[in-house]
Amino acid sequence: MSLLESIKSPADIKILSFPQLEKLAEEIRLFLIDTTSRNGGHLASNLGVVDITLALHYCFNCPEDDIVFDVGHQCYTHKIITGRFEELKRLRKRGGAAGFPKPAESGSDPFYVGHSSTSISSALGLAEAKALKGDGSHVVAIIGDGAFSGGMAYEAINNLKPSLKNLIVVLNDNEMSISKSVGSLARYLLELRTSAGYLSNKKRVQDFLEKRHVIGPFIIDTILKSKSALRRAIYNGTLFEELGFNYIGPVNGHDIGELCSIFENVKSMNSPILVHAITVKGKGFIPAEVNPGAYHGVGKFDLDAGNPDISLADSYSNCFGRRLVQLAESDEKICAITAAMKYGTGLQYFYKKYPDRFFDVGIAEQHAVTFAAGLAKGGMKPVFSVYSTFLQRAFDQLYQDVMLGSEDVLLAIDRAGLVGDDGETHQGLLDVAMLGEIGGFTLCSPANYAELEYWLEELLKTKGPRALRYPRGHESERLKAFGCSKNTFDLIKNSKPCKNLIITYGRELEQALAACDILEADKESADILKLNRLLPVDAGALFEAAKYENILFAEEGVRVGGLAETFLLRLSALGFKGKYTIIAAESPAVSCGSIEEQLRDLALDADSLAIAVKAAAK
Amino acid sequence: MSLLESIKSPADIKILSFPQLEKLAEEIRLFLIDTTSRNGGHLASNLGVVDITLALHYCFNCPEDDIVFDVGHQCYTHKIITGRFEELKRLRKRGGAAGFPKPAESGSDPFYVGHSSTSISSALGLAEAKALKGDGSHVVAIIGDGAFSGGMAYEAINNLKPSLKNLIVVLNDNEMSISKSVGSLARYLLELRTSAGYLSNKKRVQDFLEKRHVIGPFIIDTILKSKSALRRAIYNGTLFEELGFNYIGPVNGHDIGELCSIFENVKSMNSPILVHAITVKGKGFIPAEVNPGAYHGVGKFDLDAGNPDISLADSYSNCFGRRLVQLAESDEKICAITAAMKYGTGLQYFYKKYPDRFFDVGIAEQHAVTFAAGLAKGGMKPVFSVYSTFLQRAFDQLYQDVMLGSEDVLLAIDRAGLVGDDGETHQGLLDVAMLGEIGGFTLCSPANYAELEYWLEELLKTKGPRALRYPRGHESERLKAFGCSKNTFDLIKNSKPCKNLIITYGRELEQALAACDILEADKESADILKLNRLLPVDAGALFEAAKYENILFAEEGVRVGGLAETFLLRLSALGFKGKYTIIAAESPAVSCGSIEEQLRDLALDADSLAIAVKAAAK
Repeated sequence: MSLLESIKSPADIKILSFPQLEKLAEEIRLFLIDTTSRNGGHLASNLGVVDITLALHYCFNCPEDDIVFDVGHQCYTHKIITGRFEELKRLRKRGGAAGFPKPAESGSDPFYVGHSSTSISSALGLAEAKALKGDGSHVVAIIGDGAFSGGMAYEAINNLKPSLKNLIVVLNDNEMSISKSVGSLARYLLELRTSAGYLSNKKRVQDFLEKRHVIGPFIIDTILKSKSALRRAIYNGTLFEELGFNYIGPVNGHDIGELCSIFENVKSMNSPILVHAITVKGKGFIPAEVNPGAYHGVGKFDLDAGNPDISLADSYSNCFGRRLVQLAESDEKICAITAAMKYGTGLQYFYKKYPDRFFDVGIAEQHAVTFAAGLAKGGMKPVFSVYSTFLQRAFDQLYQDVMLGSEDVLLAIDRAGLVGDDGETHQGLLDVAMLGEIGGFTLCSPANYAELEYWLEELLKTKGPRALRYPRGHESERLKAFGCSKNTFDLIKNSKPCKNLIITYGRELEQALAACDILEADKESADILKLNRLLPVDAGALFEAAKYENILFAEEGVRVGGLAETFLLRLSALGFKGKYTIIAAESPAVSCGSIEEQLRDLALDADSLAIAVKAAAK
Repeated sequence: MSLLESIKSPADIKILSFPQLEKLAEEIRLFLIDTTSRNGGHLASNLGVVDITLALHYCFNCPEDDIVFDVGHQCYTHKIITGRFEELKRLRKRGGAAGFPKPAESGSDPFYVGHSSTSISSALGLAEAKALKGDGSHVVAIIGDGAFSGGMAYEAINNLKPSLKNLIVVLNDNEMSISKSVGSLARYLLELRTSAGYLSNKKRVQDFLEKRHVIGPFIIDTILKSKSALRRAIYNGTLFEELGFNYIGPVNGHDIGELCSIFENVKSMNSPILVHAITVKGKGFIPAEVNPGAYHGVGKFDLDAGNPDISLADSYSNCFGRRLVQLAESDEKICAITAAMKYGTGLQYFYKKYPDRFFDVGIAEQHAVTFAAGLAKGGMKPVFSVYSTFLQRAFDQLYQDVMLGSEDVLLAIDRAGLVGDDGETHQGLLDVAMLGEIGGFTLCSPANYAELEYWLEELLKTKGPRALRYPRGHESERLKAFGCSKNTFDLIKNSKPCKNLIITYGRELEQALAACDILEADKESADILKLNRLLPVDAGALFEAAKYENILFAEEGVRVGGLAETFLLRLSALGFKGKYTIIAAESPAVSCGSIEEQLRDLALDADSLAIAVKAAAK
């Protein structure tokens, strides 16, 4: 029996020797490579924290001691150790383990996490609560160097009390190659400050990775972002000490024995601790670190497909990215902004062609939006491409910095609507409601590439706050066939006169069309009102809709604040007295599963739509 | 003629000598004291930046060079210089100058600002745009040390390009007393690091201020917050240099000649500049700095009333604060959190009585919410009191960190609804929509102190995400008379049977009652459905409403995502076929004026409600 199969709870870790822990780490890595090759997921980041996670569970007692992962996608090893090995075999599938921490799965996950830079805040809250209660257990936050660009981390650090004894932050620094000799803090700082050596080291890593095409561009991207100023400053123990931490590091984040020794030691210290661990993202996966046999297996990976940070070649993201480059050829005012999602959003094309007009601001959506407003005020045409779920972090900036001044900012909202296996932390169900209530935005919702290309160009010709939203993944054949009417809405009429109408937009059109097929077969029928521009609400579309007796609005978004509610009110004002049914998400918290499963859960699938139309038509 | 009256534009500044500029600064200070004594406003912060503002306009050419104020409430001198002297006499009044930068007033205000920590982001955007266009003008951001606790400032700093030549950030550091001898950077840093001397100096200032009751508690609060860790670290030129700035300072922020010399010099530097200016908040107002004659005038001030950061003794804020202290007496799990608004939110009582359970996190709403979730997970009962408008910054944290895990966090949302003279950046019109679309929150809306006290206690007895919202200011006599029914809704029936119904909640009830008076006088009538619990929507309230033929929902909040739209949908589902009218804010951007003026603008005043009921009843 493998060691891995013997691990049912953290207690099973504690009885192992260090050589056994190392063997276990190896088994876990192979398991992770196997699992993510079948289910997708965040392989590289999880491989990087296997050893840290084992050492933490060896030294601390979870769940009495809390372990809080930042962003959360690196929690797989933690899930294995805390009794979810079997569930992890169905990672990111309905009924299996979620790809992110999930309290509903286990008491060992204190928080739902998926968005970045929150761990120090939530861990600090837990630690203060324990201190108030006289509970002597610890709280450990694990935060990557990438998440350190989110401003929230600084807000939390600003609130550290020097006397707090139960908070340990592990900075999982995977930017650099692993260094066998950790040296003294002084020498380390001196080395870091010698930027020439530092940069050449980076260059070397980049060359290595690019030549071998192994890790994929997303890691190179991460490494390159190390140019950022803040990064230069934070790897400075003195700074951490000034901020209220007791700094320990850098330490080898793959040396379980060393990590355990440190964790045991810091338990009894009298102030918040920061352990700076250097790790290799993808540890155990790159050819230099796995045996050649395992390496052959790597070729079978379609890592890009599995990793939600990377878009498929055939995707809305890349369609957007390629079109934006074309438009930027003839308009040198167009700028592109991403918050650490250059590849995910399809902006790699823009970056390659127009690096001067391309801005990767790191995980910093708040800054991205306000920075875009600044670019716009300066006469540029900024396009901020961002996942719908992450745009939530910039709600206030959309309000104050874009809407109030009616700035010429265009949002390209990717992963809008259901996102499938990433689950509740990543659903893109709130963007329509957010922009609707803030107001002042023109919002379009293409249902295929042709429409995306058309509306991107059109919106770039106009002024003020504008947004496009489009789903994760690629266009379907059926929606592709529609082409682009260039209209703000399309009425898809049945052959016969009909009293039923389904109103929808974006990808949900596919379900509406299939629902009509079902109705036809059942001797019922419905026309479809396909909204291409969602905001402002189109008067012509209202006028058409008001002619029907029985309206079903199917919205792949939250009901409250969504378009369906607004549409009803406007119809009422036009004297509409018919039946009006809304099918939308009552909550944005939709757990992981396939898009099909999630559509069924929300009654947004074709069958449910057809049933709803028939029920109301009676 | 005074110098002040001769200033029509920045050009008029440039022809003055330094002694004349100093005289002008004095005139401006007297004018500001006079104006704010009549109109309210942020006196102390404006007095602190008079000299910096004059020096900036002397050295730079606004609006070609952009001046971006952070938070924005310190822009009065800037408005005087840029041609708004007359408008400033009607500061914060309809038709007068707004209390915050406002592009609609002048091209010299690049952005609407009112929320904190955005200036470096927007200035950086402007600066990058200018660099791309080859425009050689400059961008100056002025940010206070308080705003530096907002994480967004770090996100922006992280994105500074070392080669950017046109960005200057002035750190307006009013924490410390002014120091005549600026000394060398090295000595300054050494002095700052000697925390014993630093703390004793703070103690001295605190004693001075408290004994004289001059400045009011809010400045003492600001000074005390200097204990925060981040503050200790940032006053370190080396840190700023690491972050990509060319650091210059500290400089005397009241020495116009010195400031001009520095600003002239930094124009030609080749990287982003940070000028660290030490200023005295309230400069020219405290007795040590004005002549005794002027000092007598100070007594007439009701500075607290004018300053939106401080609540009146008789206010919802203080009612909340006092009640929370009572409840905390018998429940030691109750904790209170504020984001730099201890006095504004009425939490000073809690702070005094239970300092261990009180957390002032600085201007850091994101952290505050997630920290609260951590406290809750640790078994505490955290109450985060926050102005509605500033809660917007934590939208994403409400979603991920509170709602998804259904954490036991209670939000006490102050300044909910219209806020009057602070204008479009400060309206509290979005909270109902935000919480509604995020979902999972119980939300109550008291209309007087008795209800506030009751619902605060009730909500603290329950679990999960909960919120209370209440307006700025104090309860009215008419609403006070209602007492507290302890019901989730009240039906206020007319003497006769009636087909008209006005639905509303919170302070707007006052307008609904007055509208009914008007209708009575006009031989019409309406009942009123007063909602006390807004979310989840009460089935009983829907049942009552469905009996009427003509419903008007008056909502002091945005329409999209508001309660009125949701209510209509639910009524439709119950078979309601009557008339349904919504009066609500179509946009949250309501400009400054009195509450009465703003209600009229939105047709939420009694007259408009009465007219709407009659129009629909025909």
